[in-house]
Amino acid sequence: MAVYTRIEEGKLREFLAEYAVGELSACHPIAEGVENSNYRLDVRSVAGDLVHYILTLYEKRVNPKELPFFIGLMEHLAAGGVSCPIPIKARDGQALRRLAEKPAAMVSFLSGKSLDARQTRFQAQHLHQLGVAVAHMHQVGQNFALQRPNDLSLAGWQRLAAATAAEAHQISPDLAAMIAAEYAYLAQYWPQNLPYGVIHADLFPDNVFFIDGIYSGVIDFYFACNDFLAYELAVLLNSWCFDVPDFSFNAENARALIAGYQTLRPLHPIESENMIILARGAALRFLLTRLYDWINHPPGALVERKDPREYRVKLQFFQQARLGQIFG
Amino acid sequence: MAVYTRIEEGKLREFLAEYAVGELSACHPIAEGVENSNYRLDVRSVAGDLVHYILTLYEKRVNPKELPFFIGLMEHLAAGGVSCPIPIKARDGQALRRLAEKPAAMVSFLSGKSLDARQTRFQAQHLHQLGVAVAHMHQVGQNFALQRPNDLSLAGWQRLAAATAAEAHQISPDLAAMIAAEYAYLAQYWPQNLPYGVIHADLFPDNVFFIDGIYSGVIDFYFACNDFLAYELAVLLNSWCFDVPDFSFNAENARALIAGYQTLRPLHPIESENMIILARGAALRFLLTRLYDWINHPPGALVERKDPREYRVKLQFFQQARLGQIFG
Repeated sequence: MAVYTRIEEGKLREFLAEYAVGELSACHPIAEGVENSNYRLDVRSVAGDLVHYILTLYEKRVNPKELPFFIGLMEHLAAGGVSCPIPIKARDGQALRRLAEKPAAMVSFLSGKSLDARQTRFQAQHLHQLGVAVAHMHQVGQNFALQRPNDLSLAGWQRLAAATAAEAHQISPDLAAMIAAEYAYLAQYWPQNLPYGVIHADLFPDNVFFIDGIYSGVIDFYFACNDFLAYELAVLLNSWCFDVPDFSFNAENARALIAGYQTLRPLHPIESENMIILARGAALRFLLTRLYDWINHPPGALVERKDPREYRVKLQFFQQARLGQIFG
Repeated sequence: MAVYTRIEEGKLREFLAEYAVGELSACHPIAEGVENSNYRLDVRSVAGDLVHYILTLYEKRVNPKELPFFIGLMEHLAAGGVSCPIPIKARDGQALRRLAEKPAAMVSFLSGKSLDARQTRFQAQHLHQLGVAVAHMHQVGQNFALQRPNDLSLAGWQRLAAATAAEAHQISPDLAAMIAAEYAYLAQYWPQNLPYGVIHADLFPDNVFFIDGIYSGVIDFYFACNDFLAYELAVLLNSWCFDVPDFSFNAENARALIAGYQTLRPLHPIESENMIILARGAALRFLLTRLYDWINHPPGALVERKDPREYRVKLQFFQQARLGQIFG
């Protein structure tokens, strides 16, 4: 359960009155999601239809100054045919508003459900579809005007490595040393001058919707940033291409992902050649943020802790992987 | 009102039981659309969510043999990230079934509404978005395996011209002669060997959804076929780039459409050079089908007749247009 903020119905009706969408019919808290509070609103339009929206209250982890980037990006991508939530503007033209003393925005409802790795074994056909969709998102993102640096790249990893070093032994005795060595390696060999653009940067299975096995869209753009386009694929290799429960690498799915991507945007050789180091960086990124959250988990918090060890296994895989395992 | 077939609730519940979607909560006939009977189904999923679907019963105008092409195309395009209805497969793996003695299919619900030209003046930003989305659809459609020839190209126009010649005077005394002359011109100069692929072929404003001014997807693929990709743009120039009520050409919108398209798929010079003759062909196609429907309108039919004269005005515009008016 990840809803943090309770909203009074009267306040919600006042909030909705600022929009030209209709009358509130129901408000359902959404359990999924760990960063913000989300609600599904059922709104009766003037024409009499019951229309769904998603209302998000931005909790403290999101920097309010960055919200125009995220809101603008969703609008830009949707305008280019990317299937994603569309921010709804209030009568004053603003999509970013306030509710319950927090920044708030309402977006369109996207049909579909994320695949649950515990119930569905991801198949090559899912990964191929995802690859095509991500390439399209990268193409459309190329002419988005705003910029946001990736604060979870090298400098961020160094900061998180320092912040977790003293307590990493909670997970395993050698973890701090492993992280320090990996950071040193990445700092020395991290590529430069790869094709650059807007990436989602958090394309976990939770954030990708399917309907009956067919891709239907992508949500949750609150880590989106400018970085190497190929780094997005490196995140996807981590988040989609290891089978549960033993986290064995699924090379068929990895190849389907890359093949799908290349149907719209063929990789430059320099991107392919750097895929393993990018995947090591992505593994370290999620190892570090999960470790940080594990150590700093408030007692009694409603959000379940995610196990950092999953990403140590993945990092170790990429440390010894050969390019042929990914590109076939 | 375009619902032709009444469905008994018991039959609908039996039909839904073949799917793994949940229990019927409500069924709402949809007034829009002229070819088939459409219903919005509200289904209570096992998880307790109310999920919308669209149920379509295919009426006599659709050839049942062609349904696998249309259903397969929607699935293929969605799998490539195109925002469109996704066919839902029943437990036996089939998306195409029967209900009330007609072919029937259930597809996912797409959020959004079409723009109404009587209420909204189409703006360059709408056309630019549409252009990008259509280029993406063309890219993804390139590797769709099935084929369907466009039966409303030259041969179809000749057939419709013959079938309407005797009664075209109902619209105006010189219409049959104008159609015959235009068909003769197009038959002689129609281009060959332009880039070819799957096109929607009926991208009228009714079939394109927006949310708060932002493109959200495309519906109604029942004229989709293989034809010149640039012919799709020629249809769009007809269906989106004339302002109401006087049908004056909106060159700014036409340029925004072409510019949006070219952000993803730059036109080959041979496509641009042929754009006016393609637009003349598209104008004749809609002039002829509207004229045919006008003449053969059954008394007491629920569907409103569309005025063929609108397309005579558009055809006359393209007969005298210069390429610079479209490409700027």
